Amino acid sequence: MAIAWFSLFLSFLLLLHGYFAQHQRYQQQQGQCQINRLNAQQPSFQMLAEAGYTEFFDLNNQQFQCAGVSVFRHVVQSKGLLLPSYTNSPILAYVVQGRGFYGLMNSGCPETFQSSQKIQRFQDRHQRIEQFRQGDIMAFPAGTAHWVYNEGNEELVLVFLEDSSNNANQLDQVAWRIFIAGKPHRALQHQGRQYGGRSYGNVFSGFDKEILSEAFGVCRETARKLQGQDDMRGHIISVQEGLKVIQPPFSQEQEQQQHGQYDPMNGIEETICSAKVRQNIDDPSRADIYNPHAGRFTTINSFTLPILRFLKLSASRGVLYRNSMMAPHWYSNAHSIVYITRGESRMQVVDHRGQAVLDDRVREGQFIVVPQNYAIVTQSGNGGCEWITFNTNDNAMINTLSGRTSAIRGLPVDVIANAYQISRDEARRLKFNREETLIFPVSTRSLRPYEGVVSA
Amino acid sequence: MAIAWFSLFLSFLLLLHGYFAQHQRYQQQQGQCQINRLNAQQPSFQMLAEAGYTEFFDLNNQQFQCAGVSVFRHVVQSKGLLLPSYTNSPILAYVVQGRGFYGLMNSGCPETFQSSQKIQRFQDRHQRIEQFRQGDIMAFPAGTAHWVYNEGNEELVLVFLEDSSNNANQLDQVAWRIFIAGKPHRALQHQGRQYGGRSYGNVFSGFDKEILSEAFGVCRETARKLQGQDDMRGHIISVQEGLKVIQPPFSQEQEQQQHGQYDPMNGIEETICSAKVRQNIDDPSRADIYNPHAGRFTTINSFTLPILRFLKLSASRGVLYRNSMMAPHWYSNAHSIVYITRGESRMQVVDHRGQAVLDDRVREGQFIVVPQNYAIVTQSGNGGCEWITFNTNDNAMINTLSGRTSAIRGLPVDVIANAYQISRDEARRLKFNREETLIFPVSTRSLRPYEGVVSA
Amino acid sequence: MAIAWFSLFLSFLLLLHGYFAQHQRYQQQQGQCQINRLNAQQPSFQMLAEAGYTEFFDLNNQQFQCAGVSVFRHVVQSKGLLLPSYTNSPILAYVVQGRGFYGLMNSGCPETFQSSQKIQRFQDRHQRIEQFRQGDIMAFPAGTAHWVYNEGNEELVLVFLEDSSNNANQLDQVAWRIFIAGKPHRALQHQGRQYGGRSYGNVFSGFDKEILSEAFGVCRETARKLQGQDDMRGHIISVQEGLKVIQPPFSQEQEQQQHGQYDPMNGIEETICSAKVRQNIDDPSRADIYNPHAGRFTTINSFTLPILRFLKLSASRGVLYRNSMMAPHWYSNAHSIVYITRGESRMQVVDHRGQAVLDDRVREGQFIVVPQNYAIVTQSGNGGCEWITFNTNDNAMINTLSGRTSAIRGLPVDVIANAYQISRDEARRLKFNREETLIFPVSTRSLRPYEGVVSA
Repeated sequence: MAIAWFSLFLSFLLLLHGYFAQHQRYQQQQGQCQINRLNAQQPSFQMLAEAGYTEFFDLNNQQFQCAGVSVFRHVVQSKGLLLPSYTNSPILAYVVQGRGFYGLMNSGCPETFQSSQKIQRFQDRHQRIEQFRQGDIMAFPAGTAHWVYNEGNEELVLVFLEDSSNNANQLDQVAWRIFIAGKPHRALQHQGRQYGGRSYGNVFSGFDKEILSEAFGVCRETARKLQGQDDMRGHIISVQEGLKVIQPPFSQEQEQQQHGQYDPMNGIEETICSAKVRQNIDDPSRADIYNPHAGRFTTINSFTLPILRFLKLSASRGVLYRNSMMAPHWYSNAHSIVYITRGESRMQVVDHRGQAVLDDRVREGQFIVVPQNYAIVTQSGNGGCEWITFNTNDNAMINTLSGRTSAIRGLPVDVIANAYQISRDEARRLKFNREETLIFPVSTRSLRPYEGVVSA
Repeated sequence: MAIAWFSLFLSFLLLLHGYFAQHQRYQQQQGQCQINRLNAQQPSFQMLAEAGYTEFFDLNNQQFQCAGVSVFRHVVQSKGLLLPSYTNSPILAYVVQGRGFYGLMNSGCPETFQSSQKIQRFQDRHQRIEQFRQGDIMAFPAGTAHWVYNEGNEELVLVFLEDSSNNANQLDQVAWRIFIAGKPHRALQHQGRQYGGRSYGNVFSGFDKEILSEAFGVCRETARKLQGQDDMRGHIISVQEGLKVIQPPFSQEQEQQQHGQYDPMNGIEETICSAKVRQNIDDPSRADIYNPHAGRFTTINSFTLPILRFLKLSASRGVLYRNSMMAPHWYSNAHSIVYITRGESRMQVVDHRGQAVLDDRVREGQFIVVPQNYAIVTQSGNGGCEWITFNTNDNAMINTLSGRTSAIRGLPVDVIANAYQISRDEARRLKFNREETLIFPVSTRSLRPYEGVVSA
Repeated sequence: MAIAWFSLFLSFLLLLHGYFAQHQRYQQQQGQCQINRLNAQQPSFQMLAEAGYTEFFDLNNQQFQCAGVSVFRHVVQSKGLLLPSYTNSPILAYVVQGRGFYGLMNSGCPETFQSSQKIQRFQDRHQRIEQFRQGDIMAFPAGTAHWVYNEGNEELVLVFLEDSSNNANQLDQVAWRIFIAGKPHRALQHQGRQYGGRSYGNVFSGFDKEILSEAFGVCRETARKLQGQDDMRGHIISVQEGLKVIQPPFSQEQEQQQHGQYDPMNGIEETICSAKVRQNIDDPSRADIYNPHAGRFTTINSFTLPILRFLKLSASRGVLYRNSMMAPHWYSNAHSIVYITRGESRMQVVDHRGQAVLDDRVREGQFIVVPQNYAIVTQSGNGGCEWITFNTNDNAMINTLSGRTSAIRGLPVDVIANAYQISRDEARRLKFNREETLIFPVSTRSLRPYEGVVSA
């Protein structure tokens, strides 16, 4: 009886559309984007654990405050498990290095991964888990617990963006995370910067042991273990023998099939239980813009990964070969949070007063925030540059100033000639000379990118 | 001519979809959810009137500020009429006791309730009015005037939630209400608490009498009556002979037919004029989760009452029998505002740091706010407990920590064993022992709920 | 190769639906609508340029802060060009006087206006440009650059509303605009009011000349011209010979055909490249409400101009003949920003406490803000009055207090009789006497509108 009712309940409750229905709380942001100077950001403190550590970027930094996001870098050793936890904000994660698998804990979803009773020693059934590899983007909804395991032999490096000004967050615009197991350590400051004292908790530690014992129907000793009070391992634990779970073999083919089966616009039939939350952004064959002499540019948005429609986030991957340029452009509907994954670039960012707020090299491992409508130009040096950009809109709209498809190219020649006080021939050159789209090689004669650039 | 144009105008204007189109103003909320301690809330002052009174809960209380809502309790005597008024926020109302009818004043909707000229003495035609009874949820959109009449013989008790941080409210995050008739009294503080001085007004009182006389085409004396300046009856008036309106007979059957005729997803054909804004949540046969030994749980959301999609609110009704428990859970996309309608419960609420912010008995007539993502467990005593929960999302998503459909149950056994440092057998018990969903009886051996609990 | 990829990219990127997908940043507003007194607003400073000037209304005025908008008046001389620029907020513009054409710079949209090579001397191809005339409403999305040219012989007068609290703006709630060409002057205060110092910039001025030279593939001298550093003409320049662009002939017929070809609800096939962003609101034949003795009322919302669905703005046009009245009413889901285009009116506005916050004449060229849910009545004098109202909702919902379709008319007679303590006969008169909808002539006997009115 209860089961029957619950099925009905679930069929309503878990519809993807409803689950992520538009929320109505909002956060303050005013006055936080009066930025005179952007700076490349490095981690300012870290939280150590048995099998890895998490690096925090300064949460009070004006750039992150303006964008309303928090960023983190998790480093998980081989056979390390990032314990299950949930946040008050949706998360977009990029796998910088390594491979593994993860699970989302969706209350009410069926346990569709089952062991065959006769063959396997430890019988189990659990919810869908999914494998990931370097170059994947993963999207975790706010309030949904998730765990991540490093199945590979090298360190797993994940970059997390938590969008705490997202309307899915009805709480304060402070990124928080609560664990369902373990007892996280306190974060340690490093590089001499100040830190306001961040601590993560275990959700069970606030409940009465008696009540937990009753809620789970287990003895008090097990209930006590839930609270993790004697656990010294921190938030990333080591699984000595390797984690044994039920999972299908991982293959590139399977991934592509999976990709084909989702209709981006249904919003009804697809449930949160089967929603695709991962997509590879590194595969060169998926590039949206490609120039064999300059690099490529790949976008993941709500058209390619429908769940982003509900997270209101998107991402793009840029690869510039040596001495190449990404044309000056601005995003008209999103902030950009850029993380350099390899190499370095000279970046110039211009604000609404027409003043440069950044003119500097940005290097591997650094973050830079480019506020909505600020114009940016990026130029790689001899080593090339690769980066991931998180955008605070599920369909971030790029406007380029030069090149094919640029805003200038759409102007009548006579408007250009009059606006810039140049001849019609010059105007025509300005409009048509640069044939490439977004990415192009820099002619070696004209530009020596790093001369005269002094890093701040 | 004017009529023809207006028909066209209306057919556009009154489409439900457009009427409640997503709004774009938002309210500040940051810094208001830094809550170290939750407290059960009782009314702190009241506004008296001829035929009833309204009780206010402390609007400056941090809990209500965090959730961005205001709550009220209206008590209307038999034959009492709560005068027509409108608010800057959408309202979700629960009928704690009594029965009656109400009307929404939708400008431009047809007057579909008509008297037959020959039979009735007082000829009239007016907009649809609707009857309600104990256990009904009613949804009133922001800015739409409504009035409520107690048709029964007992006191009518209504609990109102006004969601002033809703995006339908482009004004300040302060709940206000303006009356279209009468002259409300000032609110009186009681129980010795401070009060900031709240007054309700009459919209006509600010207009010039001459202008009103012209606008309505009536004499100045009638125009003066609109302003209610000599009216000493307050906001709830007594209708001595009983209110005479045109209405169909009320029946349970009719209600169910009405329920069937709405397609939750159309959003186009249905107009605000015929939108269903009421649904019973008490009927045990509508329970979503039911345990004959423990209680039941019923939800009303935008799938069952489509207008909630535009109000961004939902509600649930919980009934726990004696010595029963509602499993630890959190709402991932909504605040919960809980009102105890009968009995009492021990509630434990845990914040994001893993600390208990509430461990107390909450009793009939009290409110408690559970912020988004905070975990809660509820346990009834010998007398059982009944409550109504308002959620600040039209599809509030519940995540349970124990029991069938819980987040823990979706985890692989090996993750549980490693996370909590327990054996695989213990992990299997933790995962599978509690078979019930959400609600279950407490074994009398293990728990004596009220021992050692000191109310704050 | 690059082109093929880009086509795919565009087909995703430029879908209208995605382009304007719901954004998730919001601005603070709390505490800004505690308004005790509304005042008609006149421009407080201006920015001069070669071929025109822009007038600013006080951005710190409480009324505009409450509504979260900024308003401007651009005056462009014949053959004047408002240089291309973009803003952080969506814009709704009304053409008070004059005619001309404008272009939106949508990066990636095809250059569909092409010259025939054999016939025309200056060969060119550019994006769609569109003609406009007096009485047109134009909608410019946030972050999309636009330029406007005065093709007529008289001065072009445009009123701009920038909705900086719109959720399309993820930056501060400060209206800003950045130019793609030229070097705007500083704004000058006039009428002795204080001014905080506003400056507009040129986006190219912050970039390195070398980089611009490379980005456009032009010489450094041309790159230097992009930055406009020696340009003394300001933001509105004079085009001596008149601007030569490729454009189809303008006709009323064509406009209407264009109107018919859009399906307001598709949201998918229509791209931003072909979206209709202009509509005439002055044409009497399009009136929604018309009274041959009193005036007319015309609305443009997302049903008539679909792009407004994404801008979350709408507009209405009111024309009152001499000695006429617009019935008392309130907007339940939007602020109203009213600009008088001709004549003057006596306006009374009542707040939520029932107190008059405005009782004054408002004249041609003045703005008045009516906050959401505030009630207003408007009455013209001997000269009549015309105005344009911008609403902060794409389907602003009007509620009238008197007349056909009013809220009062939907009430049962017995509710009216009891609420206002009048007889049923009086109640019936109050309900039925005023037969007109929204607009009606004032009987000369009853009202002399300007007697006793002292302007503040």
